[in-house]
Amino acid sequence: MSFHIHHRNNNNTTTQPSLSDVPKRYVAIIGGGLVGTLATLYFAQRGWDVNLFELRKDPRIPENSENSGIFQRSINLALSVRGLSALSKPNLDLEKIVLESAIPMKGRMIHIGKDKLSSQPYGSFGENIYSVERNFLLESLFNTVESFNNVKIYFQHQLKRCDFDKGLLEFENKEDGKLVQYTADLIIGADGVHSTVRRQLMRIINMNYQQEYIPHIYCELTIPPKVTEKGNETEFIMDSNHLHIWPRHSFMLIALPNKNKSFTCTLFMPHENFDSIKTEDDLITFFQCNFPDFIQLIGEQQLKKEFFHNPKGSLLSIKCKPYHYRNRAIFIGDAAHCMVPFYGQGMNCGFQDVELLDSIFDKYNITSFRSDDDKLNLALEEFTNIRQPDSVAICDLAMYNYIEMRSRVTSPLYLIRKKVEDWLHWLFPRRFVPLYTMISFSTMRYSDAIQRWKRQRRIFNVTWITVSTGIAISVFWRYYYRRLRW
Amino acid sequence: MSFHIHHRNNNNTTTQPSLSDVPKRYVAIIGGGLVGTLATLYFAQRGWDVNLFELRKDPRIPENSENSGIFQRSINLALSVRGLSALSKPNLDLEKIVLESAIPMKGRMIHIGKDKLSSQPYGSFGENIYSVERNFLLESLFNTVESFNNVKIYFQHQLKRCDFDKGLLEFENKEDGKLVQYTADLIIGADGVHSTVRRQLMRIINMNYQQEYIPHIYCELTIPPKVTEKGNETEFIMDSNHLHIWPRHSFMLIALPNKNKSFTCTLFMPHENFDSIKTEDDLITFFQCNFPDFIQLIGEQQLKKEFFHNPKGSLLSIKCKPYHYRNRAIFIGDAAHCMVPFYGQGMNCGFQDVELLDSIFDKYNITSFRSDDDKLNLALEEFTNIRQPDSVAICDLAMYNYIEMRSRVTSPLYLIRKKVEDWLHWLFPRRFVPLYTMISFSTMRYSDAIQRWKRQRRIFNVTWITVSTGIAISVFWRYYYRRLRW
Repeated sequence: MSFHIHHRNNNNTTTQPSLSDVPKRYVAIIGGGLVGTLATLYFAQRGWDVNLFELRKDPRIPENSENSGIFQRSINLALSVRGLSALSKPNLDLEKIVLESAIPMKGRMIHIGKDKLSSQPYGSFGENIYSVERNFLLESLFNTVESFNNVKIYFQHQLKRCDFDKGLLEFENKEDGKLVQYTADLIIGADGVHSTVRRQLMRIINMNYQQEYIPHIYCELTIPPKVTEKGNETEFIMDSNHLHIWPRHSFMLIALPNKNKSFTCTLFMPHENFDSIKTEDDLITFFQCNFPDFIQLIGEQQLKKEFFHNPKGSLLSIKCKPYHYRNRAIFIGDAAHCMVPFYGQGMNCGFQDVELLDSIFDKYNITSFRSDDDKLNLALEEFTNIRQPDSVAICDLAMYNYIEMRSRVTSPLYLIRKKVEDWLHWLFPRRFVPLYTMISFSTMRYSDAIQRWKRQRRIFNVTWITVSTGIAISVFWRYYYRRLRW
Repeated sequence: MSFHIHHRNNNNTTTQPSLSDVPKRYVAIIGGGLVGTLATLYFAQRGWDVNLFELRKDPRIPENSENSGIFQRSINLALSVRGLSALSKPNLDLEKIVLESAIPMKGRMIHIGKDKLSSQPYGSFGENIYSVERNFLLESLFNTVESFNNVKIYFQHQLKRCDFDKGLLEFENKEDGKLVQYTADLIIGADGVHSTVRRQLMRIINMNYQQEYIPHIYCELTIPPKVTEKGNETEFIMDSNHLHIWPRHSFMLIALPNKNKSFTCTLFMPHENFDSIKTEDDLITFFQCNFPDFIQLIGEQQLKKEFFHNPKGSLLSIKCKPYHYRNRAIFIGDAAHCMVPFYGQGMNCGFQDVELLDSIFDKYNITSFRSDDDKLNLALEEFTNIRQPDSVAICDLAMYNYIEMRSRVTSPLYLIRKKVEDWLHWLFPRRFVPLYTMISFSTMRYSDAIQRWKRQRRIFNVTWITVSTGIAISVFWRYYYRRLRW
């Protein structure tokens, strides 16, 4: 085992004359996923020297992506206002590039029986969320990041150990198996659900931590594009402007459209149900019984191949506190708050982390020069204090939607309530805002959204009871009571 | 680094003739604390070959205990019925040995003001809990364990890695720094709050896990024995048959009697309060303001010395699920359910784990011979299913008592309620049982105790409201209503 000490390169590009003798700040960002690369972009624009470390190979080289484990993760994601806001802030047209390749989804399409469909719009004013492909988004971010010359990217670097007080990081370079060390003024952990930065921090601080697996696991399936009658063109086999859901109470199937006119579908089901499907016949019987229209869409052969071949993933929710250590480290994205995917907010929340951290740095006027370590400490502490209740709120909401999506969406009472809520929002767009709208079509704090929702629901319930009691009394008075008396 | 493969010794002592060709089962118990040594005893009696691994040196050798970290843990513990039941089951007079050196405590002694004391008995029929010294208990257990010749004890062995499927364990022998490997049919993790067995299992199974630090930290202090007037004898400086409490709402101090007539006291206080006491003058001012009688008991010099010298410990609560892995591993005691110390149930609950596991092994008729691996799997699964809700229940109760002990015990409403409850229990000993009695003076399941408590509380509240409303109405009728009419 050999140790290679990396000396910092000094190609500072935005050195301000008055501070030229103060050393520049180095930030090490661990994890080159969506949140890590966006954070790299923000820090690069802020003038810091950034080292980005990623365990996998460069995802932009096609032969890498298959073995890099990127296909273990879901292929497409739902981008909404929070994510778009964070992408647009650096003013680099990132959100435009992304939206050009995204497919707007204006609502849920509920597949009730064999051929019975029902559309439930997401917003009262035609708002959309966007289906984007993870790989395309990641490539766009990497391409933008690489245009900054204060950024260095290290692929195939696996973090082994951190000494936070010294700002020392030890990696294994997967190419040659050697251990290498780097130093940084600030360490940012964007290394996902099984974060090494978080685990290393847990050794030195008292961290409250909770991880909870849900009984459901998932498997991805692909509905191929439909070949048109002309034969050399393809089209979507279903309405492409919806997120399709087959709710079946204890399990469900969803489908999101892709740019190549296929749909990526995810089957969420308890472990035991997966285990009970052992043969191809079991599979076809199960689908014919529960998703008869889906077999026609995907085709029997494709279904058999993918169901038994594709990996099954588990789903978990992680909450913890704090997210920072003094002025030395912070962790963001899934590392800080992993959530089940049922509100489509995982990536959006991670992107908003980056935007929030940036705005707190603005507030404390933190420059790229090593001169204000106390302020940095305060800024990181403020990040924990602001973001932690919001992360808990959205993790809980995602868990709540886990039941809503697979079960409640078909209940008549839910549908009436949703109609009334949409109508109230249309009547009083500022006074009454449905929860889904606050979460997906605004950037307000998640915890504020939930508080406001609870308040609205109280008013809604009181009004509902008053009005219905009023109607009942009037009817009683008009038809029965008067008849009884005369 | 060298590897030493340990070959199993075959000194089977209780080989049954009919099964003599079936290999004996090896159990590796990780952690020679209170729970690990008791488990060793149970398995030794069951006829298994037991290897007990402990990180520290032998605690029975006096020069070891100071450096072994054992003094980082609380020195005395409250033993109650659950712990006693588990100690008595092996029929080795262990509970008698322990009780001879234990001090019965019949209630709480609340120190309200400077000289105002109030005794609150634990049970309506004079039941006691017992103050026992950790070291004495541990030594008694080790001495009993060593009398079995199917037990081998390895001190200074730190578990590094487990391969559960192969039953392979890798330790670092702290004496020579070498890595050694052992195999076992069953691995039992009794390695405490920072359990390596649990951490290793989390890598291969989906474990739900939660750790929560409370804002309070603790510091131990000692009240020395009082020298009698004759001069060569000592006596207790306070009533020795109580657990003394100085509740001060946001913090508190408790004291448990020791056999040598000293008291071991623990100050529980938020971090900030500890931080604000910087000098000896700060300390004396703080104690004079909050615990004036305590300064007289401990003496200024002793207080100053111990407060600044003794380590400050943090307090956390851990819940997780499952506790087992197939038929290969299980973890018990603090490793499975660490709780804050405010119900005095940590050790009792760990001891009960051992007794429960043993009774489940009895139920499934699991012998010491390797012939029934499926049954072993079922038994371990049953342990998780039965014990997990009970562990959660007692962890939650301990957290609830954290507020009760430092604050609620002085409220008049609490005291009236407790009096009425004690009186009801005295009247209907089987029908109405206070929660504390069910937890400390019975072996019923913790979760059943809580359910029963909730049911009793509902009946209690309804009765309370009915009776008081009845009285109010009678009074109103007698004095006002009749006067108003005539």
